[in-house]
Amino acid sequence: MALHLITGGAGFVGVNLARRLLVDGERVLAVDDLSRGQLELLAELEVHPRFQFRQIDCSDPDALFDAIKHAGDRIAHVWHMAANSDIPAGIADPHIDLNRTFLTTFGVLLAMRLAQIPELHFASSSAIYGDFGELEIHEEVGPLEPISNYGAMKLASEAQIRAAVEAYLPRANIFRFPNVVGVPATHGVILDLIRKLRATPNRLEVLGDGTQKKSYLHVDDLIEAMMHISRLKGRYQVFNIGPTDKGVTVRMIAEAVRDRVSPTAMIAYSQGNRGWVGDVPRFRYSVRKLVETGWTPTLGSDEAVRRAIEEIACQEVGA
Amino acid sequence: MALHLITGGAGFVGVNLARRLLVDGERVLAVDDLSRGQLELLAELEVHPRFQFRQIDCSDPDALFDAIKHAGDRIAHVWHMAANSDIPAGIADPHIDLNRTFLTTFGVLLAMRLAQIPELHFASSSAIYGDFGELEIHEEVGPLEPISNYGAMKLASEAQIRAAVEAYLPRANIFRFPNVVGVPATHGVILDLIRKLRATPNRLEVLGDGTQKKSYLHVDDLIEAMMHISRLKGRYQVFNIGPTDKGVTVRMIAEAVRDRVSPTAMIAYSQGNRGWVGDVPRFRYSVRKLVETGWTPTLGSDEAVRRAIEEIACQEVGA
Repeated sequence: MALHLITGGAGFVGVNLARRLLVDGERVLAVDDLSRGQLELLAELEVHPRFQFRQIDCSDPDALFDAIKHAGDRIAHVWHMAANSDIPAGIADPHIDLNRTFLTTFGVLLAMRLAQIPELHFASSSAIYGDFGELEIHEEVGPLEPISNYGAMKLASEAQIRAAVEAYLPRANIFRFPNVVGVPATHGVILDLIRKLRATPNRLEVLGDGTQKKSYLHVDDLIEAMMHISRLKGRYQVFNIGPTDKGVTVRMIAEAVRDRVSPTAMIAYSQGNRGWVGDVPRFRYSVRKLVETGWTPTLGSDEAVRRAIEEIACQEVGA
Repeated sequence: MALHLITGGAGFVGVNLARRLLVDGERVLAVDDLSRGQLELLAELEVHPRFQFRQIDCSDPDALFDAIKHAGDRIAHVWHMAANSDIPAGIADPHIDLNRTFLTTFGVLLAMRLAQIPELHFASSSAIYGDFGELEIHEEVGPLEPISNYGAMKLASEAQIRAAVEAYLPRANIFRFPNVVGVPATHGVILDLIRKLRATPNRLEVLGDGTQKKSYLHVDDLIEAMMHISRLKGRYQVFNIGPTDKGVTVRMIAEAVRDRVSPTAMIAYSQGNRGWVGDVPRFRYSVRKLVETGWTPTLGSDEAVRRAIEEIACQEVGA
């Protein structure tokens, strides 16, 4: 029954991770600055006797260290999930990803060093790779040329963690997340489309021409992959996480949302195959390395998206 | 006769670059926070009518933008050379490379965006690659796993620049520097060894067992390579810069320093093939991509080191 620290603990992945750790019998200290994480997402968890929450900006290592000191026991694992999740906002203002995506990692590392916490599990991103077109992206490809500040600051975080492992940190796992879907949804294409369509039920406007093709993983499969990797034995492990298929198009997602929410709506696409600057239109993500260690996703991209649409449509009715 | 901004303009490479640009008939605004750069290195340049200097910490974009505004003309090129150059110090305190190696790049990019300066030339480093052992390191290798905070923050800088090129910056060149030698020496193995030997002329203590093998480029060849790359036409260009040989050992350098400075001294090596945490012991650096564009170094590692020993020995007598 170890004590786990989750940063970004009131965010989409953080909440799912906390629930899973509690189910497994572990104890959880969740921290979040609530800049995008939402306290109401924790309602169900906050009553749990093995769960505690502190509002902290973890780019402030002193505040984080203070929370660690007062956690009541030694922390065995840090799951660093805190980051900006709005990529276009980060392109408009580079300070957002500097502060929330990179300096949070920097602060976590400083606090871990002070508190001598031995294991870091980090939510990196497929965005560190940039645009490889039709080439398959495995963990050892180069060159790494992220095309968004978000991707740049995730790569910066990985680099800083790698140097920490060289100097003092006993162990780190780097999870390179794909697009992840599920509830509680706080951002992302499905939530955006559902909200748009509820606002204007006759017409669904889609950024880009709908041909962007990406793979999507359901958050339940993501959490299972993270647990699986954390049980492997390497000192510094880097894994792509994602489904084994080639993904689905934005058009498929838009049509499935329309069918679920407002079947008679027309869908209007805009020009170009990029939704925004920094968006990667096509993406062949290899998860062979992870699959070879014995993990398999239970849902493909198509199933993950369809299940998430159902889940998010219900969430939004309740909201 | 364009106006060039050089950051780190009072440092080793900055001073050599400024001199070269002035010789070519260009105008130079050099900035430096003088944390490691030295004003006396600028004595010869400061009297030049096409040279100006401002003491500025370029991690402060407002100060930098102010200097740019008051430069008297539009700046056409930024040569961003400012960085921490003490790798072990940066491992002991990660803030050093955060502030001086990464946040300087972040500040330069903000100021360039405000001032609409179209071309950035950036001094990156072979340290972004980490430890590839005997494998040849070309520009497209992966994975990139820097083992020092210095390397991590150079990689972070590259990533941030790449994202800027995607969003607004018209052009950037990334120079991945090798070990560079020459004068005015402000740091580095040759200067360290000469100073040690002058302090204790009978005995030269060397970090590591002397088998570390690295390639060294003379600063004159480095500057020529940077000029050459800046004339190529790509929008985002990444080049390894270095000699074409496999390098020389620390033992060779120590012996050549001893022969020049104090021929009867004994040399004492310590255990292990790393001089410090974050030091890469062996390194096969490919500069094929650069050579194929028509550049060739005039000196190999052995000649570069021997010439630099002579130059630095003279500098230190004068110092």
